[in-house]
Parts: sequence; structure tokens; C-alpha cells
Amino acid sequence: MEITNSPGGLTTEFFTFAENGGFNLLCGRSIGPVTLAYETYGTLNSEKNNAVLILHALSGDAHAAGCNDTTGKNPGWWDGYIGPGKPFDTDKYFFICSNVIGGCSGSTGPASINPETGKQWGMDFPIVTIEDMVRAQYHLVKYLGIEKLLAVAGGSMGGMQALQWSITFPEMINSCICIAASASLSAQGIAFNEVGRQAIINDPNWNHGNYYDSKFPGAGLSLARMIGHITYMSEKHMHERFGRNFQSDNMSKKNMDSEFSIESYLHYQGVKFVDRFDANSYIYITRAIDYFDLNDNGRGRLTEAFEKAKANFLIISFNTDWLYPTAEAKKVVQALRITGKNVNFNEIDTENGHDAFLLPNKTLEKNISSFLKNEFKKSTGK
Amino acid sequence: MEITNSPGGLTTEFFTFAENGGFNLLCGRSIGPVTLAYETYGTLNSEKNNAVLILHALSGDAHAAGCNDTTGKNPGWWDGYIGPGKPFDTDKYFFICSNVIGGCSGSTGPASINPETGKQWGMDFPIVTIEDMVRAQYHLVKYLGIEKLLAVAGGSMGGMQALQWSITFPEMINSCICIAASASLSAQGIAFNEVGRQAIINDPNWNHGNYYDSKFPGAGLSLARMIGHITYMSEKHMHERFGRNFQSDNMSKKNMDSEFSIESYLHYQGVKFVDRFDANSYIYITRAIDYFDLNDNGRGRLTEAFEKAKANFLIISFNTDWLYPTAEAKKVVQALRITGKNVNFNEIDTENGHDAFLLPNKTLEKNISSFLKNEFKKSTGK
Repeated sequence: MEITNSPGGLTTEFFTFAENGGFNLLCGRSIGPVTLAYETYGTLNSEKNNAVLILHALSGDAHAAGCNDTTGKNPGWWDGYIGPGKPFDTDKYFFICSNVIGGCSGSTGPASINPETGKQWGMDFPIVTIEDMVRAQYHLVKYLGIEKLLAVAGGSMGGMQALQWSITFPEMINSCICIAASASLSAQGIAFNEVGRQAIINDPNWNHGNYYDSKFPGAGLSLARMIGHITYMSEKHMHERFGRNFQSDNMSKKNMDSEFSIESYLHYQGVKFVDRFDANSYIYITRAIDYFDLNDNGRGRLTEAFEKAKANFLIISFNTDWLYPTAEAKKVVQALRITGKNVNFNEIDTENGHDAFLLPNKTLEKNISSFLKNEFKKSTGK
Repeated sequence: MEITNSPGGLTTEFFTFAENGGFNLLCGRSIGPVTLAYETYGTLNSEKNNAVLILHALSGDAHAAGCNDTTGKNPGWWDGYIGPGKPFDTDKYFFICSNVIGGCSGSTGPASINPETGKQWGMDFPIVTIEDMVRAQYHLVKYLGIEKLLAVAGGSMGGMQALQWSITFPEMINSCICIAASASLSAQGIAFNEVGRQAIINDPNWNHGNYYDSKFPGAGLSLARMIGHITYMSEKHMHERFGRNFQSDNMSKKNMDSEFSIESYLHYQGVKFVDRFDANSYIYITRAIDYFDLNDNGRGRLTEAFEKAKANFLIISFNTDWLYPTAEAKKVVQALRITGKNVNFNEIDTENGHDAFLLPNKTLEKNISSFLKNEFKKSTGK
């Protein structure tokens, strides 16, 4: 099988699998068959040693690069980083990106049909974890004929998946690129996820998750996204970009609708999100992020978690990221170093907060491209 | 008139006033007569020079100290600081605290009757500002026979009111105690206020503010409060108090209801708030906070704003307060120093974040009591 796909005019593909009839989840339930939507970019070489698995964040999907329609208006969420000559260079490497299990962009999730009832799962969908997402991706990688990935790479929840890959399938990856993530989310991060979920649950259209045949809980999902966006930006960036500017400047013209620029921006982001995301998936995926904990909820030690890991690591944090602060990334780095792993760590200066991994950043670009080049050289001798 | 009230068994009083038939608001509209609910503690001396006006924050009310019912279970919001022998010592000074205009605890606000329609104002209530709150308090102070206050004092929105007092009525205050506040709210702060308002607006019971004869938008108000609470706590305090503890620890028992401790805490705070606060007041008061800007929205300079101020200042910030960070307090301090004011500034080390002004804090207690003692001595010679 030769697999070739280049950014531009590509299509999303679908891979369906089952383990003994169903896919066994960490919660003890089994579902299946499971479908993963995925895209690939670049060409898998004959040695099959140039494959990189790209892992998306909370609101991402399989469409990481290029345009998957003819309009040319819908670039992938990491298009700035994946493409010919880009840090994730499609001229050299082969990239796979799949929508996570629990997602809503082609992969099996709460909006999928429950084969037992013939209706959408809704909140009957089982709880999924970061480990479940990774174990599903494993089947896709195997299906594509790849025995060992050159790298796994992602930011935010994608970074959590990358760390999980290094632990669950240590033999299957050469290297791990983890950006703006940590070994577990902070209590504050859980709190923000919870108020986002509550915004959805409060929407009367949510109806305990049974809204697929009626009105969509758009107001709730939009508000959840607005809350999330505040946490993705640094206070400084928000100040510099929006300041305290209003639309109407005269006190006598002010009313409850007159908005500061930051409010308009958040509303715009919220409304835009509703067009492309499922409210139940938002609940399931934020829960997966909350539950992720390589410290085994305080019982274990991070060093134990990484004991079996074999990959080389590139760990990146951003100095203005207050959702996944550098201090958390450093805990990962320290545990990796104690367990004797090869780790490159860089805290990048930026004003863009957590969002920085999605935005143009010369340092991040250089870090990725040189790490990947080096890893390819080390693992292939080329 | 001798005014005496001691904490314990006190009652909330009501003062009603009008300016030429109505109270003129900054937005250009006039309402009236206006009622302010207030409480007093301690005894106004015969020289009437020991009066301190206490200014409450977003969710506060006139009940700042003692118990205003017979149960003894309802202490005032600043009871730790106001009382016999406490930093705001009722054995020496006389304290006044009134619920702000726009509030919902006895003062005129959106839940009050609009005399023109005989119905509750709801969202027809005019926009109120911090300056309007202060100008309404002025009438109360005058009514109580006080020509000059020993001090005005408050935290958060109370601190904004304190700063506004120093500018609007420079001759009427000896000193100004401003805690955990700034000359304007940041874009990030506005963003948090906006998602809180949106949570209320999304509640179908809100009904454009017309809910007084039907169901209360409790879910929305509760969520707004939950969002607010995240911003009042430091990440560190949240981590140390709640960590990542769950109620159920076994993955197979997890479901969407199983909650981390931080989630239970926030839900509890949200539900508790709904019992005592009006949803429309939350919208109006957060807007007043958003609009407050002594920099005149970037057109003016803070030094110009404070030019006329005559008070001596005590400015306090908390090192873990990320809603009103020390850097913002320092801008106020700098402007006051440039304009030649007498300023005491202290950044207090605490893990309690913005909430610290409401919690026991020895340093804050000492700062307040010695500042007040000194101000009383300077202004009275006693």
C-alpha cells in the first residue's frame, strides 16, 4: 500500500475497527465498531519510517493541514506548521491526523448512532479518556502499515495524548513532541472546564444530551467556548489587542448591549464554534482532559509513569500560558530526566498565551523542524 | 441626632432621597426618589469626625458587620474586620455601610418598582456607574449629619468606589482605603464579567429581565457566580484546597456527574448565591465595574483624575490576586505620588487571591487599624 496525500484537494478518510467485536474502553465498557476520521499529508516512504502522528486539541479535528474542500477557504487547524517546507515538512515526512474518539468530526462519539438502539448515543456514550483516544489511534497507525512512528506531536490536549503515547506504546514511537500541556490539569483548569460544561447543561435545548432531533444547544456551547477562549489568551495579549475599547463611547449612549471589543470577539468565537462542534462532545472531551493524570491522582509518581517510556522528548511551554503554565511542563521534564530520558525543553517567550502553539512562532517552528530532522537522522541514519 | 448602633441585634435602615424630584445619573437619565438600605455600627461622636463609610463589592450589601437578625447566623460580609477591638474598631469609630444603587438588598435597583409603570424596572432600569453609587452615598452621609468622613474604605468594587469618592468629593473625606482594586478593570476582567452576564442572559427564565412575576433565572445566576469565584481565588489556593480530588476514584464508576472537589465547591457557591442576589442586579453592577475608568478610557491620565483629590491614601494589593493584580494598584499609587498625595502602599503576601480582603489576614488588619488610628490622630489631634 502506498499512501500519498498532499495538502490541497485532499479528503478526509474513515477507518473502522473493533477489538473482538468491540473497542474496550478504560471505563470498562466496550463499544464498536469504532470509526476514526483521519487525513494524511505527504508520502509514506518505502521503509515506513517517516510517519508522524499529529494529535489535536479539544476543539480540533482530523483536518490539520491544507484544504479539504475545493473552496480553498478551510485550511487545517495546524496548516501554518504542516506543509511543504514547513516545520512538519510534507516533502520529507508523512503525517497522519485523526479525530479523537468522543469527537464530532467523523469519529465515533456521542453524536454517532448507538448500534443497540439505532439512535444517537447522546449522554449514554461511555466515558472516554486520553488513553482511549491513544489506543484508538494505535489501530489506525497499524492499519496504515506503520510499525514505528517517527514522532507523535500535539499541543494542549494533543500534548497530553503525545505523553500518553510514550507510556502506552513505548516501542511504537521514536519521539514525542509535547507542547503547552502537562501531566494533569490543575484544579483551576478543571474549574474552567466545569463552568463550560455547566453552560451547555443549562441550555434548555441540551435536554440531557437528547437534542439531535430537535434544537441544538447553541447558546450554551457558544458560552462554553467563550469561557475557554479567555483561558487560551494571556492577559497581556488581550489587553494589547482589545484594551478597554468600546463601540459606543458616550455614557448616555451606553446600554447593556454596547460592547467592549473583547466582548464582541468572544461572542464571535462562540458563534463560529457552534457551527462546527457538538455540545455533547464538548462535555466528553473536557472530561477526558480533567481525568488525565499521569500522577495517577496523586497516588503514583510521575517518574513511575515514565519508567517504560523510550522516546526522545521535545517539551515546549509558553511563558504567558496560564492554563498550562511552564511550572507544570517542568514537572514532566524533571520526571523524564530523573528516569534517564533524552529531553529537549524550551520555554518560549510569547504574548499569545496557551494559543501560541496554533499561531505563527519562529522559535516553535525552529524547535520542531530541527528536533524532527535530528530524530529522523538518528533513527534512520539519513 | 445621636446615632448609635452596635453589632448584634441591629437592623437595616432605609434612607430615601431625590435631587429636584429625581436622582440624576451619569447616563443622563433621572430616577427617583431613590432608596438606600444601610446599616451603622458604633457611635458617631459629638464632633462627628469619627465616621467611616464602608463600601461593598459586587456581591455585598449593607450588612457589613454583626448579625442583623436574631439567629446569630448571618454575620456581615466584613464582620471579621468591623467590630469592637477589630481593625475597623466600633469602640472608637462610627461605620456606615449602604447597599449600592443598582443593588438588590434594599436599595433602588432593577428589582425595584418603576414609579411610572408600577412594575419592576427590570432591564428598563438606567445604567448605573461607580460614580452614581458614590453620589447616592453622598446624600446618605449628608443626611446622617456628617460633613467630613474620617475615611472611605472598601475592597474590589468597594475600592473603586473609595477612589471615586476621593475624586468626586475631595473635601468630604480625610482618607481613602482602597483594597484589591484598580483605576479600571482589565480586558480580561471585562471578559469574565461578560461570560457571567451571558450565563444569566442564556437562562430562558431570564426573559429579557422580566422574571419577577415568574421563574427566577437561578441556573444562569448560579453559573455567573461560579465563573466569578474562579477569578477570586488564586490557582495555588485552589490547588492546595481542592487539588485533583474526586468523590469517586474508580474509573469504572466515573460518570459525567462524578465531581472533583473544586466542582462541588463552585456549585455550592453558585446555589447559595441565588438565594440572596438578583440576576438583573448582577448584570447592572458588573457593567458598572466594566465602565469604571479613572483614565477616562485612555483619553485622560490618571494623574489628571487625582489632581483634585485631597485624601491620604492606603492602597493595598495581594500578590496572588490575578483579577486586580499589584501592577494595576501600582499605577494608582504612582499617579497619587506624582500628584503629591500622601500614599501608603502595601502588597500583601497571601495565597488567597482576590478574596483575601474578605478573609482573616493579620497584615491587612494591622495596616487598616494603624492607618485609621493615624488618620484620626492627624485629623482630630486625638
